[in-house]
Formats: sequence, C-alpha cells, structure tokens
Amino acid sequence: MNKTGVLTVVSGFSGSGKGTIMKELLKKYPEQYALSISATTRSPRPGEIDGREYFFRTDEQFEQLIAEDGLLEYARYCDHYYGTPKDYVKEQLAKGKDVILEIEIQGALKIKQKYPDTVLLFVTPPSFEALKDRLIGRGTETLEVICDRLCRACEESKGCEAYDYLIINDHLDDCVKQVHEILQNEHARMSRNDEFLNKFRVELEAYRKENNK
Amino acid sequence: MNKTGVLTVVSGFSGSGKGTIMKELLKKYPEQYALSISATTRSPRPGEIDGREYFFRTDEQFEQLIAEDGLLEYARYCDHYYGTPKDYVKEQLAKGKDVILEIEIQGALKIKQKYPDTVLLFVTPPSFEALKDRLIGRGTETLEVICDRLCRACEESKGCEAYDYLIINDHLDDCVKQVHEILQNEHARMSRNDEFLNKFRVELEAYRKENNK
Repeated sequence: MNKTGVLTVVSGFSGSGKGTIMKELLKKYPEQYALSISATTRSPRPGEIDGREYFFRTDEQFEQLIAEDGLLEYARYCDHYYGTPKDYVKEQLAKGKDVILEIEIQGALKIKQKYPDTVLLFVTPPSFEALKDRLIGRGTETLEVICDRLCRACEESKGCEAYDYLIINDHLDDCVKQVHEILQNEHARMSRNDEFLNKFRVELEAYRKENNK
Repeated sequence: MNKTGVLTVVSGFSGSGKGTIMKELLKKYPEQYALSISATTRSPRPGEIDGREYFFRTDEQFEQLIAEDGLLEYARYCDHYYGTPKDYVKEQLAKGKDVILEIEIQGALKIKQKYPDTVLLFVTPPSFEALKDRLIGRGTETLEVICDRLCRACEESKGCEAYDYLIINDHLDDCVKQVHEILQNEHARMSRNDEFLNKFRVELEAYRKENNK
C-alpha cells in the first residue's frame, strides 16, 4: 500500500463533537495523524499559543502568503484572514502522516477541487434533537446564542452533499474507530496505488516477453 | 446510517485468492453478506449444483432474460453465455444485505456505469513473485497453463485502474478484515445518506421558522 499520507478535511455542525473525535484520534494514533494548524490575522485569545491553536500573522504576512501561493485555501471572516498554510501539510503528508484539517465547507470544497484525493468527512449528531441537547448541555452559551447557532446550522450545511462520508456521532468510541478505519482504508484506493500496479504490470510484461507469448 | 445493501464487485488476478476472501467473509458475517450467483448456458461440471455454483439455463432461457432486461450484465465466452440475474441481487439489497459479485473487469465496469454506487474491489497478491508461487503451489495446473495464465494476467488487468480499491492479499485474515471494514463504511457514504440529511434539514428549517429567523 502507498506510503504518502491522506489529506482529510473534517467539517460538521457546531455541537456535532467533531473536535472531540479529532482529539481522540490524535491521542490514540499519534504516529499516524497530524492536525493542520491554521494561520489567522485575528489576535490570540487568552491561553492561545502561536503555533498551537493558530499561527498568528499580521495582515502583511498573510497577504504575502497569499501572493506566493502558500495557502491551501483561505477566507476572510469578520475582518480577519483565516487560511491553511501549505508547507506544513505537504511535509507531514510526505512523511506518511495522514493530515487532518478542521475547516468549514467552502474551504473544504476549494481544497477538494485542487486535490481531488482529499477525503471530506462531515460530522453530525444522530438527530436534530441531539444537536439541540448538546448545544444546551455545553453550558457555555446563552439560549439566544444556541438559537442563533441552530438557525445558522441549516445555512452552514450547504454544500455538504459533496462530502465523501457522513459521520454520525452517536457514541464517541465507535465514531473514532469508524473515522480511523475510513482513513486507513483510504490508502488502499486504486488512485493511490499506481506505483504498485505499474510495477506489477512491468514484471508481467517482462515474463511474457521472456516466454515469447 | 442507511439500510439498503451495498453492491460490490470483486475481481482480481487468478491466483490472487479472491475466492477464499469472499468465502471467509460470508462464513464470518453470514447475516451481512450475500453472494450473487451467475447464470450460464454451459453444462454443469461434476459436483456443480444448479442454484449453488450457477443457475444453469438453456440458450433460449438466457436470451429471454436478456430480452426482458433481467441481467445486470452479461457476456459470451467460448460459445456460452454468462450473466448476473438482476432479481436476486435487488431482493438481497432491499433486505439490507451487501451483495458481492465475483466477475471480471469488463462486466464490473458495465455495472458501475449503470449503478455508480457499486464498489469495485480488485484483489492482487503482494507481488508478481507471490502470484507465480501461488499458481504453482495450487498443484492443479500444468506449468504450461500457469505460464498461459501469467501471460494473460496483464491483459486481464486492463481497466482495473477504474476500480475503487486495490486489495493486496498478503495475509488472509487482515484482508478479510479490510474488505469488511471498507464495505461497512461504505454505508456512511454521503450519497447513501440523503434521507438522513434531508430529515435533519427539514427539522432545522422548521425550528428556524418557529423562531422567526
């Protein structure tokens, strides 16, 4: 099987638990996965460290990255840039690590267009009721914010039909196992195994010539 | 996750062990999988039973099946028809069983064209040397036949680039596990989960209206 890492984008409803799944995946298989770190021009929040939560950059630095095609994708929200630096992702893939990006749908679709081998996973709670309960259960948001989030969720899921897999997060452990299986079996995709197949054919052809058929 | 079965075609080099993988898969998960049985106009060989190895049909019966669009695919080899009866496959899929067809590449590609959700698996030994050793190891064929087979293998693998997965059969148990994982996770494909997604969106939309946003 091929040794290059698989590029994966994970998106999902806020409250779907996608962050927890990724955290567990990295904890369980630290040798296999690498999490991509986004660059942003917004200021660090208390506790955020440059190079851990984000690469914090100035507008000039970010625009320089754009100019030199150094980003896999980028977007501007609320007067700040957010983007995925290309170098780190490429390095990790070359090392054979499967790289996970946690970004929203529009960015994911841009990446899929440029790199069709990217695997897109969309994480959802098992039902609308469960989503509501989880957002309330977090206890970190006011009811108004939760209402806003739910109302925006429909809008936010636009385009998710183009994703490869729908991951229904009912039980965390099952979900982590499923994501791991999907990503590991992705290495067996025919499109990732040209080299193996070509070698095999060259050997068959040589044998045929040797036997004058 | 969706309840309809997944249609899968397994092909591979003769000597790749694909038959053994399928047999093990059915033995391990008899509730999950069903093996499609081909129809043919060739005569039964000693020990072959109608409805087990093949559905044995007359030329007239087979041509009737063709005329009424009763086959997923068919072909003619060495003066005999071979084909996949549609009814049995559809029944099993509707029951939620994943149906496995063991047919060659040309037939597989015809099915994929008609039913793009079909999963195509191509089984290969881990190397050309291993393929040669396995064919010799069987002890059922003369060396000349083995040479012929190897020489034909290159020809036979034409079109396998269009398959979804390359299954490298190095250790049988690992291989059975991998095929099972791939097929089970296939149920999580976005294209198979329209119903879930639509229901979710209808509920979100209703909530939005209720809250006048």
